Amino acid sequence: MVRAIITNAPNGGVKIENVNITEPEHYEVKLRPVYTGLCGTDRGEVLGNLSFAYNEPGYNYLVLGHEAICQVIEASENPYKIKPGDYVVPVVRRPGKCVNCRIGREDDCSDGDKHEAGITGLHGFMRDYFYDEAKNLVKINDKNMVKVAVLTEPTKSVMKAFEVFDTVSKRSIFQGDDSTNLTKNCLIIGTGSEAFLYAFMAREYRFNVFMTNRHPVGEEKLSIISRINADFYDYTREDPLKGIDLLIDTSGDPGTIFRFVRKMNYNGVVILFGTNGRAPATSIDGEDIDYIIERNISLVGSVDGAKRHYLRAVEYLEKWNYSEGSVINRLITGVFEPEDVSIFTKKPENEIKSVIKWS
Amino acid sequence: MVRAIITNAPNGGVKIENVNITEPEHYEVKLRPVYTGLCGTDRGEVLGNLSFAYNEPGYNYLVLGHEAICQVIEASENPYKIKPGDYVVPVVRRPGKCVNCRIGREDDCSDGDKHEAGITGLHGFMRDYFYDEAKNLVKINDKNMVKVAVLTEPTKSVMKAFEVFDTVSKRSIFQGDDSTNLTKNCLIIGTGSEAFLYAFMAREYRFNVFMTNRHPVGEEKLSIISRINADFYDYTREDPLKGIDLLIDTSGDPGTIFRFVRKMNYNGVVILFGTNGRAPATSIDGEDIDYIIERNISLVGSVDGAKRHYLRAVEYLEKWNYSEGSVINRLITGVFEPEDVSIFTKKPENEIKSVIKWS
Amino acid sequence: MVRAIITNAPNGGVKIENVNITEPEHYEVKLRPVYTGLCGTDRGEVLGNLSFAYNEPGYNYLVLGHEAICQVIEASENPYKIKPGDYVVPVVRRPGKCVNCRIGREDDCSDGDKHEAGITGLHGFMRDYFYDEAKNLVKINDKNMVKVAVLTEPTKSVMKAFEVFDTVSKRSIFQGDDSTNLTKNCLIIGTGSEAFLYAFMAREYRFNVFMTNRHPVGEEKLSIISRINADFYDYTREDPLKGIDLLIDTSGDPGTIFRFVRKMNYNGVVILFGTNGRAPATSIDGEDIDYIIERNISLVGSVDGAKRHYLRAVEYLEKWNYSEGSVINRLITGVFEPEDVSIFTKKPENEIKSVIKWS
Amino acid sequence: MVRAIITNAPNGGVKIENVNITEPEHYEVKLRPVYTGLCGTDRGEVLGNLSFAYNEPGYNYLVLGHEAICQVIEASENPYKIKPGDYVVPVVRRPGKCVNCRIGREDDCSDGDKHEAGITGLHGFMRDYFYDEAKNLVKINDKNMVKVAVLTEPTKSVMKAFEVFDTVSKRSIFQGDDSTNLTKNCLIIGTGSEAFLYAFMAREYRFNVFMTNRHPVGEEKLSIISRINADFYDYTREDPLKGIDLLIDTSGDPGTIFRFVRKMNYNGVVILFGTNGRAPATSIDGEDIDYIIERNISLVGSVDGAKRHYLRAVEYLEKWNYSEGSVINRLITGVFEPEDVSIFTKKPENEIKSVIKWS
Repeated sequence: MVRAIITNAPNGGVKIENVNITEPEHYEVKLRPVYTGLCGTDRGEVLGNLSFAYNEPGYNYLVLGHEAICQVIEASENPYKIKPGDYVVPVVRRPGKCVNCRIGREDDCSDGDKHEAGITGLHGFMRDYFYDEAKNLVKINDKNMVKVAVLTEPTKSVMKAFEVFDTVSKRSIFQGDDSTNLTKNCLIIGTGSEAFLYAFMAREYRFNVFMTNRHPVGEEKLSIISRINADFYDYTREDPLKGIDLLIDTSGDPGTIFRFVRKMNYNGVVILFGTNGRAPATSIDGEDIDYIIERNISLVGSVDGAKRHYLRAVEYLEKWNYSEGSVINRLITGVFEPEDVSIFTKKPENEIKSVIKWS
Repeated sequence: MVRAIITNAPNGGVKIENVNITEPEHYEVKLRPVYTGLCGTDRGEVLGNLSFAYNEPGYNYLVLGHEAICQVIEASENPYKIKPGDYVVPVVRRPGKCVNCRIGREDDCSDGDKHEAGITGLHGFMRDYFYDEAKNLVKINDKNMVKVAVLTEPTKSVMKAFEVFDTVSKRSIFQGDDSTNLTKNCLIIGTGSEAFLYAFMAREYRFNVFMTNRHPVGEEKLSIISRINADFYDYTREDPLKGIDLLIDTSGDPGTIFRFVRKMNYNGVVILFGTNGRAPATSIDGEDIDYIIERNISLVGSVDGAKRHYLRAVEYLEKWNYSEGSVINRLITGVFEPEDVSIFTKKPENEIKSVIKWS
Repeated sequence: MVRAIITNAPNGGVKIENVNITEPEHYEVKLRPVYTGLCGTDRGEVLGNLSFAYNEPGYNYLVLGHEAICQVIEASENPYKIKPGDYVVPVVRRPGKCVNCRIGREDDCSDGDKHEAGITGLHGFMRDYFYDEAKNLVKINDKNMVKVAVLTEPTKSVMKAFEVFDTVSKRSIFQGDDSTNLTKNCLIIGTGSEAFLYAFMAREYRFNVFMTNRHPVGEEKLSIISRINADFYDYTREDPLKGIDLLIDTSGDPGTIFRFVRKMNYNGVVILFGTNGRAPATSIDGEDIDYIIERNISLVGSVDGAKRHYLRAVEYLEKWNYSEGSVINRLITGVFEPEDVSIFTKKPENEIKSVIKWS
Repeated sequence: MVRAIITNAPNGGVKIENVNITEPEHYEVKLRPVYTGLCGTDRGEVLGNLSFAYNEPGYNYLVLGHEAICQVIEASENPYKIKPGDYVVPVVRRPGKCVNCRIGREDDCSDGDKHEAGITGLHGFMRDYFYDEAKNLVKINDKNMVKVAVLTEPTKSVMKAFEVFDTVSKRSIFQGDDSTNLTKNCLIIGTGSEAFLYAFMAREYRFNVFMTNRHPVGEEKLSIISRINADFYDYTREDPLKGIDLLIDTSGDPGTIFRFVRKMNYNGVVILFGTNGRAPATSIDGEDIDYIIERNISLVGSVDGAKRHYLRAVEYLEKWNYSEGSVINRLITGVFEPEDVSIFTKKPENEIKSVIKWS
């Protein structure tokens, strides 16, 4: 019996209770979570809004949780040198058999035949202990970053999106004639935790970074935005900026996306990342298509990330943990007990990222 | 005085008359057109539908024509070894000062400060003779292809679009596990001349090629489609195909585009090429955005092409001129006299590509 | 019993005789060769010079032959639509388990655990019939090119090498400021069949093409070189050219390679392709290394090719079969009977490519 | 009159004296160096070993110094927002007119027509003040890193080399089947300051990092190597490692380079970076060429870096300044006065990087 936070996918609900999960006969690593993070996907599952979620076969429930930093309790010898006592982040998505899955790029799965821990057919990480293979674990070498490392999983998606940007933007010369992005504008739609992680990275790419949404944001968010030299705009009140070179959407709202697509510069790239299946429809016409073509604009969906992106996430989180007064830590706005399952249904005020401390 | 087919951009109209164009003081090459081609852009200008078109500064008219194969009448020595008697295709777009224009990629112009012969501020090629620099001319070595070479200009856009596909599709493993596109589907929306040129090239990429539009097409088009081993679907009657890996639009119609975006496979690429500023609006919602993201789909606008794409166009047109019973020649459905300016306002029945023979 | 040309790898020897090869229990396609080609590898095996060659396990001989065009005798249904009567080229290299082999890129095998028909542990194609899977067969659609298609296998290596060039040359702007290679020089070392195939392709890339070696070449070779607008230099007599942008070696001779590396232009690319384990040593010093660094020069080994490169080989061979008076066919300088095994030990005079006709 | 450390290129010599350099009529920024660094190039110039060095036209001396961190004294308004009081690193190489120089990639200059401050025809940074354009200055935002930022210039070359690696390694799947370099080996030849900077970055790429040279190294170097989880080998005593995936040479010694090229794994990449025109010759034979080909190995020269690489250098130096007990600072083994010109001719014992403090 193991204590776990569970739902019944895709119907929803949430509770913490002792459940009976069959232990694997052979395993490489036994893990206990230190922190797990919550995101919109967890809440969507609990609300029964995610029709694609499903229980692990053989169980009438699903352990929640795909954002975690864990400590290794036991480990057999392995090529990745994971040892007891190590802090590690487990990867979420597990491969199928397609060409991309075969080379460790299950984030680019060609046929949809993959699984995601805590979401689709695989128990998640919100339990007192679980088992995994060393290959699926990303080691955290710097012990000062154990807490901030709970952001590794959401940050890995940012790293994959920027890899996609790197590839797609090679279709022409994207940078200015000084070979940099110093004169280029990046607009990020949204001010949630993902939007902030995109802003942190866009700044490393040396864009002029702007964040926007339809509501004014509170003091704390404004303070973080200012601390990383970005700017905030309430787009219903003012025009965010003249020309956008890189547009990153975390809202999933078609109307907002195309509002800003119409302001893209030549050779601009639009990263579609945020999903909201219930977002209302918007209208696009021949002139929108024309605009995209005449300016050689690219719109690219980007989901998930591979182990390489987890490693890059760790690389940058380690940096951000030290620089600029550790402002990155201010993204973690609440630390809760596993028993506080109410946070799955009621979002704490001014939340950027809520996490659960396990031990 | 030179005989020329002119319009008054952007107001429209068309006539053939002798006009007085100042000859350049210095020039490298004097040219006379052999064939010039007509496309939707020419007709749009004549109808006054293209608000972005404008006359060459200093003139109250604009010589039409951007698709041409010419013969060299005079030539001074030049590094491109263009000599009198040579057949050449002049490039349409001329560079500004941006980073892309500086390296011969004015097709990817970063600031819109470029010109297009026969369209935006530069006299076109529909006149008895004109002058150009050798650098802007693409040599046709195989004299058997003089007629088919009038298709070089529209084909160069196809070549650029496939270069964009090559770059963008590298974001993941696109091909099957035999390293080829043999099991991949390419759907082309439209059955005009551009759609056919895309079909010819998609077949070289070894896609299963499908063409579609909302009306049944005539015998001749069906026969060409069949000759190149492609398939035609009337999408209002039947579902064109289950999964699309590469979608190429030549219609500019948002409704049709998104109808098929919703059938894209994982890692699919959508090339937006056809423009129709007057196409009616369509509605896209949160699920459409979600679909694009979860499948890592890319939608990319692609306009024009650089000199390198003209060269590749010539490379393939030369091949197609010989193979498969020269089926490529059947795309040229009508040859007219310069005086037949009515073809600018009245599309000949069953037209794929109409051309004007100059001498 | 099947008639086959065999050797005893790696010891050597050659004979044609009826051998007893176990037929597979299940197979997709039964094939009979139409033409098979001979290359230096076959002769190396026969001479016992290739220490890496070995017999198929369970046999004390190895059927020779890796260059072939075959006709399908029987075929079960398959996703590649290979049918009886079709002409096909079988791929040579068969995958192991590494990341590259898993995605159909056994030409880039990461661990050497692959097999090559007729060379390393797998019977070759020089026999009256054999069996294969449809996935390994490349279809020839144009029946006019059955003979020239025997060049598909050597040409596929050229296509892979140019793919490598495409990738590597993206490290900077390689082309001129007209976006093309028209002002760039490609020098090919060697005048054997491979060198000619490289010359054919370099010309499609629009390089100024030069071929060189240490001996004068005969009339026929000079005539072919001239026909494709290339130039020949005897480098012991004259300095081939001032600056080289793309250097392709088919000799495997270090002294000759570095002689020309020292003439590379900035950002130049050197393709190492030809192998000759017995070539004498040459000396390179600190200034050579310095030269490579200061000019950002790349030297890249390239071996074999994947199925995608066979397809591209077919694409271009089809073109070359029609254009320029079918000059490509003149590379096939001799057609022999299977019984003429003496051609394995005695190279016919003025040979470019010798082939065996099987039926 | 300005105090400056000068040489007479290419003859050599070094002294500090007040010289009369014509001030520019118009300038954007006036700068005073805070630290300048010394490298083998400076010493080579002083010894008269670098035949390619030359004085700035109009002067019979050359101000030395290309590694610097400066403070802005005066600045007119500029698009890069460089203001008085800012700390900046000036870029060394200044563009000519080639296609690469036109887009800010003078590090990839196509024709050699560029200049390098303190080396080729342009006064360097070792003087009490000088003038520059804002475009050539890289801003240091974090004031805690002023000292470590003197390493920006040498680090930018590392960043360019890894960019080259990124491009070239895309020719096949380089990473393991977990999409990372965790099971890949990087060997760095040399233990000077550049070798250490490569080691720092190779570790961020998650390679197993090894450093080697022919002599045992001192305690301090061993301690730094250990602190960054790398390993050191004296290759004359032991075999450094079985298979190398990425080999980086900072020695410029052909013999050592090819010693290890012969241990490269399949698809391995060799970065040639270190130059030593006087390094003795080595012998390479047909088997070496064969080895490179059969394994698809790439050897690439990489010199200098563009402004974008300076930015990336700053990005990582900022990280390294905080992480792992600021071990990066231990690379700066000596701080000297401008008057200590003896350090140009006599290398301090156990030097990794010597720097001059200007104020």
